[in-house]
Amino acid sequence: MKKQYLLTPGPTPVPEPVLSKAAEPLIHHRTQQFSQIFTEVSKDLKYLFQTENDVFIFASSGTGAMEAAVVNIMEKGEKAIVVRGGKFGKRWGEICKAYGIDFVPIDIEWGDAVTVEHIEKALKENPDAKAVFTTLCETSTGVTYDIKSIGEYLKDKPQILVVDAISALGAEEFYQDKWNVDVVVSGSQKGIMLPPGLGFLSVSHKVWDIIEKNNTSKYYWDLKAMKKSLEKATTPFTPAISFITQLNVSLQLIKKEGLENIFKRHRLLADATRAAVKALGLELFSKRNHSNVCTSIKMPEGIDSKQFTKKLRDEYGVTIASGQGPVQNKIIRIAHLGYMEKFDVIIGISALEIGLNQFGYKVELGKGVAAAEKILFEL
Amino acid sequence: MKKQYLLTPGPTPVPEPVLSKAAEPLIHHRTQQFSQIFTEVSKDLKYLFQTENDVFIFASSGTGAMEAAVVNIMEKGEKAIVVRGGKFGKRWGEICKAYGIDFVPIDIEWGDAVTVEHIEKALKENPDAKAVFTTLCETSTGVTYDIKSIGEYLKDKPQILVVDAISALGAEEFYQDKWNVDVVVSGSQKGIMLPPGLGFLSVSHKVWDIIEKNNTSKYYWDLKAMKKSLEKATTPFTPAISFITQLNVSLQLIKKEGLENIFKRHRLLADATRAAVKALGLELFSKRNHSNVCTSIKMPEGIDSKQFTKKLRDEYGVTIASGQGPVQNKIIRIAHLGYMEKFDVIIGISALEIGLNQFGYKVELGKGVAAAEKILFEL
Repeated sequence: MKKQYLLTPGPTPVPEPVLSKAAEPLIHHRTQQFSQIFTEVSKDLKYLFQTENDVFIFASSGTGAMEAAVVNIMEKGEKAIVVRGGKFGKRWGEICKAYGIDFVPIDIEWGDAVTVEHIEKALKENPDAKAVFTTLCETSTGVTYDIKSIGEYLKDKPQILVVDAISALGAEEFYQDKWNVDVVVSGSQKGIMLPPGLGFLSVSHKVWDIIEKNNTSKYYWDLKAMKKSLEKATTPFTPAISFITQLNVSLQLIKKEGLENIFKRHRLLADATRAAVKALGLELFSKRNHSNVCTSIKMPEGIDSKQFTKKLRDEYGVTIASGQGPVQNKIIRIAHLGYMEKFDVIIGISALEIGLNQFGYKVELGKGVAAAEKILFEL
Repeated sequence: MKKQYLLTPGPTPVPEPVLSKAAEPLIHHRTQQFSQIFTEVSKDLKYLFQTENDVFIFASSGTGAMEAAVVNIMEKGEKAIVVRGGKFGKRWGEICKAYGIDFVPIDIEWGDAVTVEHIEKALKENPDAKAVFTTLCETSTGVTYDIKSIGEYLKDKPQILVVDAISALGAEEFYQDKWNVDVVVSGSQKGIMLPPGLGFLSVSHKVWDIIEKNNTSKYYWDLKAMKKSLEKATTPFTPAISFITQLNVSLQLIKKEGLENIFKRHRLLADATRAAVKALGLELFSKRNHSNVCTSIKMPEGIDSKQFTKKLRDEYGVTIASGQGPVQNKIIRIAHLGYMEKFDVIIGISALEIGLNQFGYKVELGKGVAAAEKILFEL
């Protein structure tokens, strides 16, 4: 027997009632029964996004919804500001490049956070930029950007604020409307607690005028067609029926716990993880704005993080993430995201203590766990 | 209790072992465990497509894979021949239009089939066409096109043959390589017996040169990135993990039954359905090349097919499809597709007999069922 413990920032564990929903026979999507479910999830997604806007659902990964944001707003040759402080900011740039969009990168050192001052400077130099593309949680570095302040700054400016909240929605504090975020992208396999395969996109009324006039070639990602269908409680093409019925279950769980409690839970688990990491004498990779989605940790000199995570997974069934891009062999990332609770943190920290000792980096057994327990259980 | 019987040409019933697979906890996609499954399904898909080519898997509906075919092959202003004999042929035209492709439609009356002569004439008038886009089974009309002959005709011509086999793969006889089909698109919720949410695309070596040089803007649908990832047994973006593990199960079922037996089963169920329809004095909507995927039937004068299918679904739990587009209120479609067997045909025909009588069109009870039984059980 090898029991598995999934502690990665996507996919995340799927709650049992959501899993078992997928084992039910399919219903047809052009029926009242399905439309009712679709109407319900569409309404509940507004709660999750904290918006009055429509939330569109694509049968795609989150990247598909990112592309949908770009091709519905931007046209070839137009200018965009792109915050690149990790793999997912970089992805905004790659999508813009694929469509011939003249993008101005704000390059942030991996592990650091963008600030309002960065945005201000970029906009002063590029007042003709149409949009700012950024990220709520840069999962590749474990840093959460201060979207609230950026939204406040951009509030009365003409630029459209587009936020990739794929990993952080339903985990980090976020309020689309209150924070003046025009476009929000998300995905199913993170805080939403589903398998990967759904992409979400919410756009404000202000942006609709731009979308209506947009001429970039598209078909599957066309929001005008999506809106027409949404008004009839459906999608233009066959929806991922089983995921929508699963989403209906996970959104009930989210509503039942309540967003504020969800934010609080993630904060607590993250606080405990960070305290444990410090107690073990390790260093966080994130310089500031430490994320409540996942904790990024520098591996001690001489330990390859890919080999480290492989050993924990293969030998103990504990799956945490190594790094990506330039830090792929240098950091590990322990998630506290979605369907996770206090003892999942304990598992992650315990596995970390065991692994470090086995890789020859001696730490006092139980020291990290003790630090986490103190915070988790107010001891 | 209202037991449900799903007899539509997508979604189709999902076999129980495939359903229950979805209730298992997720595995992470950047692991050897997942790569093994991915390698296995990639190999088994070649068997299903009857090809030596790579088969790419998108987290998307079938329409997404259709768009991927267009944007990887065609560029703005280039010419394509598009066979439009139903809703899905029309969709090829819509995608081409969205990308500024100069498409020449071959308009076929709904219910009729395209012939080699149609293609020949279109190519004589448009020798500069780069590709021919058509459909294996036009599910909206219940007609299967003679792709074998079209492939034979196009064999030594420069035009690329692109076939939407979304509804017919794993149901109708089809051999990509033997029939000289360059590009094949499919989807998960038909003969492949999964929930909707995966799109498939197989392209021949001949087409790779064109794909390499293609300049149409794309990111999510970019086959060059897909190929690079496939070589490492993965996808560029998070795959729909649970669907891939389910696919692994359904492809085992397909291999176990064997493609030839699958084709035979579908033919038998279709023969029986057609015989029953005729015994009840109804007329097929398909004029020729009657599909083995679904049987399209003209409703008797005065019966609205949407009301008819609604009644069968709401009152008896039997879901068949009404028409689409111009015939949405005029025809019904009974599927014999995917995870369906002899008694599913009996259910469909029985429901048809009951419904007709209840809508005031008197037919002899049991007459259709008897005709089906005769063929199904060689009586």
